[in-house]
Amino acid sequence: MIEGVKQQKWWGWGEEGHSYGYKDKPKFAPFVMKKVGVDIALPVKPIPPFSSLDVPPSRLSESLRQTLVGILGETYVQTDDETRVVHAFGKGVRDLVRVRRGELGRVPDVVLYPGTQREVERLVDAVVDADAVLIPFGGGSNIVAALEAEPGESRQVVSVNLGRLNKVLEIDEVSGLAHIQAGVFGPDMEDQLQARGWTMGHHPDSFVWSTLGGWIATRSSGMQSDKYGDIADITRGLTMVMPGRVLELRPLPSTSSGPSVREMVLGSEGRLGIITSAWVNVHRVPEVREIQAYFYPTYADGLKACRQIVESDAEVMMARVSDALETEYIMANGKKGSKLSSLVSKGIQKLMLQKGWDLSQIAMSFVGFEGSKSHVRYTKGIVGKIVRDNGGMGVGKGPGALYDQKKYDTPYLRDFMLDRGLVCDVSETTTPWAYAEQMHTNATGAFYKAMDELGLRGVVFCHLSHSYHSGACQYFTFAINDDSENNLVTYDVAKRAIQQAFMDNHGTVSHHHGVGEEHSPWMEQDISPAGVHIQRTLFEGIDPGRNLNPGKIIHDGAPGISTNSADHMA
Amino acid sequence: MIEGVKQQKWWGWGEEGHSYGYKDKPKFAPFVMKKVGVDIALPVKPIPPFSSLDVPPSRLSESLRQTLVGILGETYVQTDDETRVVHAFGKGVRDLVRVRRGELGRVPDVVLYPGTQREVERLVDAVVDADAVLIPFGGGSNIVAALEAEPGESRQVVSVNLGRLNKVLEIDEVSGLAHIQAGVFGPDMEDQLQARGWTMGHHPDSFVWSTLGGWIATRSSGMQSDKYGDIADITRGLTMVMPGRVLELRPLPSTSSGPSVREMVLGSEGRLGIITSAWVNVHRVPEVREIQAYFYPTYADGLKACRQIVESDAEVMMARVSDALETEYIMANGKKGSKLSSLVSKGIQKLMLQKGWDLSQIAMSFVGFEGSKSHVRYTKGIVGKIVRDNGGMGVGKGPGALYDQKKYDTPYLRDFMLDRGLVCDVSETTTPWAYAEQMHTNATGAFYKAMDELGLRGVVFCHLSHSYHSGACQYFTFAINDDSENNLVTYDVAKRAIQQAFMDNHGTVSHHHGVGEEHSPWMEQDISPAGVHIQRTLFEGIDPGRNLNPGKIIHDGAPGISTNSADHMA
Repeated sequence: MIEGVKQQKWWGWGEEGHSYGYKDKPKFAPFVMKKVGVDIALPVKPIPPFSSLDVPPSRLSESLRQTLVGILGETYVQTDDETRVVHAFGKGVRDLVRVRRGELGRVPDVVLYPGTQREVERLVDAVVDADAVLIPFGGGSNIVAALEAEPGESRQVVSVNLGRLNKVLEIDEVSGLAHIQAGVFGPDMEDQLQARGWTMGHHPDSFVWSTLGGWIATRSSGMQSDKYGDIADITRGLTMVMPGRVLELRPLPSTSSGPSVREMVLGSEGRLGIITSAWVNVHRVPEVREIQAYFYPTYADGLKACRQIVESDAEVMMARVSDALETEYIMANGKKGSKLSSLVSKGIQKLMLQKGWDLSQIAMSFVGFEGSKSHVRYTKGIVGKIVRDNGGMGVGKGPGALYDQKKYDTPYLRDFMLDRGLVCDVSETTTPWAYAEQMHTNATGAFYKAMDELGLRGVVFCHLSHSYHSGACQYFTFAINDDSENNLVTYDVAKRAIQQAFMDNHGTVSHHHGVGEEHSPWMEQDISPAGVHIQRTLFEGIDPGRNLNPGKIIHDGAPGISTNSADHMA
Repeated sequence: MIEGVKQQKWWGWGEEGHSYGYKDKPKFAPFVMKKVGVDIALPVKPIPPFSSLDVPPSRLSESLRQTLVGILGETYVQTDDETRVVHAFGKGVRDLVRVRRGELGRVPDVVLYPGTQREVERLVDAVVDADAVLIPFGGGSNIVAALEAEPGESRQVVSVNLGRLNKVLEIDEVSGLAHIQAGVFGPDMEDQLQARGWTMGHHPDSFVWSTLGGWIATRSSGMQSDKYGDIADITRGLTMVMPGRVLELRPLPSTSSGPSVREMVLGSEGRLGIITSAWVNVHRVPEVREIQAYFYPTYADGLKACRQIVESDAEVMMARVSDALETEYIMANGKKGSKLSSLVSKGIQKLMLQKGWDLSQIAMSFVGFEGSKSHVRYTKGIVGKIVRDNGGMGVGKGPGALYDQKKYDTPYLRDFMLDRGLVCDVSETTTPWAYAEQMHTNATGAFYKAMDELGLRGVVFCHLSHSYHSGACQYFTFAINDDSENNLVTYDVAKRAIQQAFMDNHGTVSHHHGVGEEHSPWMEQDISPAGVHIQRTLFEGIDPGRNLNPGKIIHDGAPGISTNSADHMA
């Protein structure tokens, strides 16, 4: 551990000692039992001690070590086992299962912690000169296998943790732009900005454990993207260190200077270089911020309402709607006596029944409003009418406030479930609006078909998470009751079924999680073989020696998730 | 001429018989006399007949001709002189001066008019197989030398006019997406969309004489981009024909699938292939559309107000403000007895003087509003307050309606001026807001310094044309009194001074005109040498034989506008 650089626990999400708690949520255990037949109250196997892992020794050569120490100093060239294992993976379920089992794969040989832009330049050149492999590392929250070396990598593997590059360097208060180092974590960055009255407004689920550079490298999107934009919109300029070169893109609101180099760096996942800082749009902290909750008779009604909100003159900060099962899940997460748990109180239930709603089909929605008091009032008026037009009803601010407090806790649930023999993960996609409902039906259908074929119990639910003029992102969460040694094959089958449904229903491989190795098999279906050819041409031209995070986004062999899985489980 | 494909006149902008008229604008001739000392009422030299040009013969080989005729039919393989000359240039002042002088450079050897996607695929392969050069051609309105072959090109040069690909193929009314062929001109496209109640909302100055494919290939932006976005935002999917491949990007509202191939095609100016169709965002024609005019005491006040409008809760369709000189120019374009000419009527002048305004400094602004009646009222309220806070005053809808009618006429003025010995052109850039005023001062200052050094009279004026969260585009128009044979060197000096000021004041090489050859010399300053390396890697990797519009965006030699000029004038 390096002072001042946050590090996740080696076996799961976030900090040691912080985990999902259900004891004050009386409906949660029955919900899990009903859906997947698991008793979460049973005792769980403890996580084995780190010392029980068989960590392969570092292959760092003495000569490269000395070069790196010369650049960074001893402290910032780490080769201890735990640091290396923490940097060997992201936090996808495939990562979590493997690390718990001690299947560590190709663990990096050294982890570097540069403290300046110049140090990054020098270390990139040193690593490439030594024909080693360079993998940039932000918060380690990646879930698409973008952080691990290729299984058969025989060269030295160097992970570069950007965590010491964590400062807001400058705020241009006239332009609403901030120059920020890439290694800063979400909360630290917002603290620095908000101390001066500014916010970036970018809040992905991973916010607490992800960094600006990671967001850019994976084309992240935050919960408030309807107002603030995706990271691709927010990022106006950036600096990226490449072998022998430094790319400097000054902050520009818009430009017509050929194919967008900015948009090539966005989503590049380390394959073009290491992003060290960026110029991003920042906004004054709004006068009013409010999240209202609504219910619709069905998810389809909620989807339609979200589309109408985007089409309308209202500009909202967020518009989410959960399908029936996710609505049930949200309710099951209500604390005893809380607003959430009393939401479908007798009174509201009665009202719903009077309206002829089927309570098993109701869909909960959160809509966020920001701006001046009068603007929030105006916008709520427009949204309220759309809600009513679609048969919905408002239930006030209480649930939204709770959502706002708890929004970053979900990833802890994955470890909790894994402790109890449940394999959980997420997949998300965008489609044009015309295919949103069909996508929901067919992606969930594909998952349940896979469960039937496997003879396993699983559950999948979904919410619409980000809206655009022409379509929306739907975010699927699934859990499968499989405590066997075979659970990653099970995961593979489920994940593959959902991803293929994305392709078959006008969706994309990912809206905001990136490609890594995990989504690579669908790239030709997504952007066509010619699109893959263009990306490959770029990567091979910039990095002919395959030193920059090779194998991510586009595989050089013939990728396939089943072979991936075999590799990973070998 | 091919039936159904609009063609501009060989020597200037737009249609034969359509030109700028000033006789009903009593203030215009005095304005020109005062600013640059030219009497526009004097007789002008007639344009020489086309037959007087010495057009180099087509070098098309019989074998390639036969192949192309086999693909397209005789009618759509044109080698006549006028068609070839029309396709030899865009409409920059450098183009107009050269074509009038009969300095035709490397005229294409054949012009093709494919009628289907499949024909484009076959012709691209045939042309590349023959090692010929392929230049896609839309409306021919380009002003950055992106349409002409390199001066020394010894291979056959093939211009591909996309004008027969002019249909709106499909409207997805749920998603607000339209699938449109790339060769459609602006008005034809909007007619097809509006007949079904839809609009794309993309209105560049060139609208009448430019095409969807051209907008995409150059990263165009329209006057209403504050609401509808730049073409890069509007374009959600596309098809591009490459040698031996077809890139198919399906329409997606947003995606995290690696470096954005969509954003590589945007702005590619023919260097990656030929765009044949695109999926674009379309919107319902709004209930209300209104352009309000305002005056500010100074341009600086207007800039500040536009920034505050973007920051505010109002979402406007457009916010323009002209500097003092452009305001004077707009007034000078008022027809006798029109609202515009009476704007600075005695009454309003008196009011301005009472407020202590210096009438030589006033800045005129147009702000566009769209949406429901109540939304337009709400938004106008917010804007009205900002105008007042910045010392401005509203003068109603009259001038805006006139602006709206006449907005596409300005390019005709360039030919009119050239007839009278005035070299005119435009340069535009974006900066962050913090540098907007400095950019205006220094870019105009650089122009006047160049005029002083040349000992010539010139005038430059400017408006803010497109606003973003973090900055804005400023659009400079300049005219120089130089009727000599040397006028392109003069142009070069002026253009170079302005473009270098863009670089020196935090601006970009172009906001929406693209790069071509004209802006290529500043690419390293704009996106840094590493950015140029990335673009070059992409172009050379995709097109190793240099068949796809070579020399555009990134020169392969050592580009410099002075050597360009020498080439062009040789």
